[in-house]
Amino acid sequence: MNYISIKEINSLSKWVKQAIKIKKNPLKNQSLGKNKTLGMLFFNPSLRTRLSTQKAAMNLGMNVMVMNFTNEGWTLEFEDGAVMNSGASEHIKEAAEVVSQYCDIIAIRAFAGLVDKEKDYQETVISGFLKYATVPIVNMESAIRHPLQSLADAITMEEFKPRHKNKPKVVLSWAPHPKALPQAVANSFVEMMQMQKDMDFVITHPEGYELSPEITQDCKIEYDQNKAFENADFVYVKNWSNFNDYGKVTNSDPNWTVTAEKMALTNNGKFMHCLPVRRNVIVSDEVLDGENSIVIEQANNRTYSAQLVLQKILKKI
Amino acid sequence: MNYISIKEINSLSKWVKQAIKIKKNPLKNQSLGKNKTLGMLFFNPSLRTRLSTQKAAMNLGMNVMVMNFTNEGWTLEFEDGAVMNSGASEHIKEAAEVVSQYCDIIAIRAFAGLVDKEKDYQETVISGFLKYATVPIVNMESAIRHPLQSLADAITMEEFKPRHKNKPKVVLSWAPHPKALPQAVANSFVEMMQMQKDMDFVITHPEGYELSPEITQDCKIEYDQNKAFENADFVYVKNWSNFNDYGKVTNSDPNWTVTAEKMALTNNGKFMHCLPVRRNVIVSDEVLDGENSIVIEQANNRTYSAQLVLQKILKKI
Amino acid sequence: MNYISIKEINSLSKWVKQAIKIKKNPLKNQSLGKNKTLGMLFFNPSLRTRLSTQKAAMNLGMNVMVMNFTNEGWTLEFEDGAVMNSGASEHIKEAAEVVSQYCDIIAIRAFAGLVDKEKDYQETVISGFLKYATVPIVNMESAIRHPLQSLADAITMEEFKPRHKNKPKVVLSWAPHPKALPQAVANSFVEMMQMQKDMDFVITHPEGYELSPEITQDCKIEYDQNKAFENADFVYVKNWSNFNDYGKVTNSDPNWTVTAEKMALTNNGKFMHCLPVRRNVIVSDEVLDGENSIVIEQANNRTYSAQLVLQKILKKI
Repeated sequence: MNYISIKEINSLSKWVKQAIKIKKNPLKNQSLGKNKTLGMLFFNPSLRTRLSTQKAAMNLGMNVMVMNFTNEGWTLEFEDGAVMNSGASEHIKEAAEVVSQYCDIIAIRAFAGLVDKEKDYQETVISGFLKYATVPIVNMESAIRHPLQSLADAITMEEFKPRHKNKPKVVLSWAPHPKALPQAVANSFVEMMQMQKDMDFVITHPEGYELSPEITQDCKIEYDQNKAFENADFVYVKNWSNFNDYGKVTNSDPNWTVTAEKMALTNNGKFMHCLPVRRNVIVSDEVLDGENSIVIEQANNRTYSAQLVLQKILKKI
Repeated sequence: MNYISIKEINSLSKWVKQAIKIKKNPLKNQSLGKNKTLGMLFFNPSLRTRLSTQKAAMNLGMNVMVMNFTNEGWTLEFEDGAVMNSGASEHIKEAAEVVSQYCDIIAIRAFAGLVDKEKDYQETVISGFLKYATVPIVNMESAIRHPLQSLADAITMEEFKPRHKNKPKVVLSWAPHPKALPQAVANSFVEMMQMQKDMDFVITHPEGYELSPEITQDCKIEYDQNKAFENADFVYVKNWSNFNDYGKVTNSDPNWTVTAEKMALTNNGKFMHCLPVRRNVIVSDEVLDGENSIVIEQANNRTYSAQLVLQKILKKI
Repeated sequence: MNYISIKEINSLSKWVKQAIKIKKNPLKNQSLGKNKTLGMLFFNPSLRTRLSTQKAAMNLGMNVMVMNFTNEGWTLEFEDGAVMNSGASEHIKEAAEVVSQYCDIIAIRAFAGLVDKEKDYQETVISGFLKYATVPIVNMESAIRHPLQSLADAITMEEFKPRHKNKPKVVLSWAPHPKALPQAVANSFVEMMQMQKDMDFVITHPEGYELSPEITQDCKIEYDQNKAFENADFVYVKNWSNFNDYGKVTNSDPNWTVTAEKMALTNNGKFMHCLPVRRNVIVSDEVLDGENSIVIEQANNRTYSAQLVLQKILKKI
């Protein structure tokens, strides 16, 4: 069993319930991971993912080896048949096969390069590990997906959803950001929402900022942010760089910043963000520090999201 | 309970005794830290602090997560109300609140920038964590303090003090160094000496190299190094950059280097330094390698200083 | 007991047998390393060594502290009597003595600089630790030796050697590489082969690429690669930079790349390489991916090579 995309989840509601159970007693399965080793390979920076995944593994009694691949290891070649006479010292084939011999589970973080859309959307790095590794692979944010985050988001929504409403309304809203960011968090959030029964979902962003149609499929898109926010129970905010004009920042309109005025349009909606968040660019201090902000709880649930995934994998190996 | 400054210590003599007891049986409290996690966040290089604090935590049975924040995480913003549209990706508020959810204790190393005196002396980084974290904070050397070092120094002096002398004499001596260094070690040493009963204390440095008067208060200052060394039982040597002409190296007089001739003025005095030390600049090989040098023992006591602090915190959480 | 060179091994055949025994039940000695700490200090990148040595230590129940010395610690001075007023902040003497107080075993990786032959062949870094440390030292690849690799190679050859042949033939073949590489792996392999009874050994490389004569001694050298490969049971391939024209790449002849045609000259020979390997420069994909390639098994044996060494040291401390 791998955990590459939120689509690995057979029943989202079941997984969410299991994660909430783990949260109540996180040390219950401490013998499950005994003498099992998690290798965490980072090709990019990480705070929450790094610490929460490590914490989850330790809760399960696992050994953890953390490696910043880019500066602690060798430059990898991903192309088959390459004549490796320039930069890369090691082919993904050997790297993945070798690491598989030292670890029972390999977790990988490898962001989008945001230059070559096709390469990013083929998930070159994580697909390479998936192809050649002989142990389960966990995605700690790949070029186009961040399924540990989205599972934590689902857990958090379950905890905070209004109890007496049939179909909570969830908005995914783009917001401005000075630097080009990957679409991974948004993509996985969309894929997770497609698995939610009994929720209304709408995506809002400036025209031209459409996510991949293969991801959004028939999701509702509303270009008027105010209209999208109306009566929302959850507002999930995230910047992403342009998918069509790939990896570019083509809009930085401060009118898209999430403010108290905008949150006032919602149904006392909760504010969500995966963090790190740029204050007063993505969202005003007032909203982020307000009582409806649940970003810290979201981050906390990263531990239980990771722990559930590791636990499921451990039970199968 | 936090450990930000040596002033957190209610009774220095009691703490020193407790640390020496730990040193005799360091694994005695191995169940105390079980399933507790220490997060060690480094904004700067570290050898002794990194390894001794980790060792102390492991002696207590804790899990440890080490993170080099600067290159493994995100650039932090410390100013409240900042519009985060330039370098920093994450505000200290979220960072501290989030990490608090994964760790039971957070230890932080964040040196002085030596550019903005006010900012350094406000302890921007560690104060930020202190303000927003929801778990105890341990100072692994902040902009202006290094209290784990000073506690280790106190332990070492207790072990090596002359047994038949009423009031040992302790000298803190400045010595030259090619690069600008923080005042943290000197500051905390001074603060620790102010808590010592039954010790004579004198600070010696070139004129103009006065430490912050808020730190030194009514400590005796002697500008003649030779005179200061007379009859000393401990000579604690350390360079610091200018406090008044802030962060500058305004003196590199080799006459301040500690040599055998100078040590001959002392009462068979012990040579102390926190390490790393530049040989034949701060101190001559002869002195550092001599039998009165106790720098290695000092470094060893870093483990027990850290272990005592962690142990006290663990007992309160 | 240290493990600096393959020459520390009193009986290679015995050690190989012991390692194979460990491989069958790697967790058998899990109490041996309890409350013992391995400090792993890296001055250079590492994938296999980093993870396999850590895994070996964890199999023995040890605590592990990993430190990338170059960017996490201080720049070291190795010269005795140096006036340390320029780059280096800490002398190897203090560093080694201090780390010895926090660790029960210190493992070090420090590559050749490939600029100063004498300095490299004096093993400045690891010799400095050896001189001043007060605990056992393990070589995780030094300037001129990589004995954990060579022990793993010996284990692998034992597992794959032809059962009905009296004296298997082993070839160490140079192959081209775009960048200058150390001679460490080749040197230690040669030293290991000199300890093999009942194996025929030949080294092949272009003229002028002779390894140190103090290492190769009376080993057979064959400048015709094809001739060397004839009837070989193992072909161990590795690039090294020029020893005479020190650290230079004076040959990049693609005719030395190991291909299927060349392997056809062997006695159904196994292909070995320490990894990382540059595909289609050192060796063709066809050979590396072929069924006679045992590079992944070699890498797997790194765990048991390290575990045997740690186990032997632990039994003596």
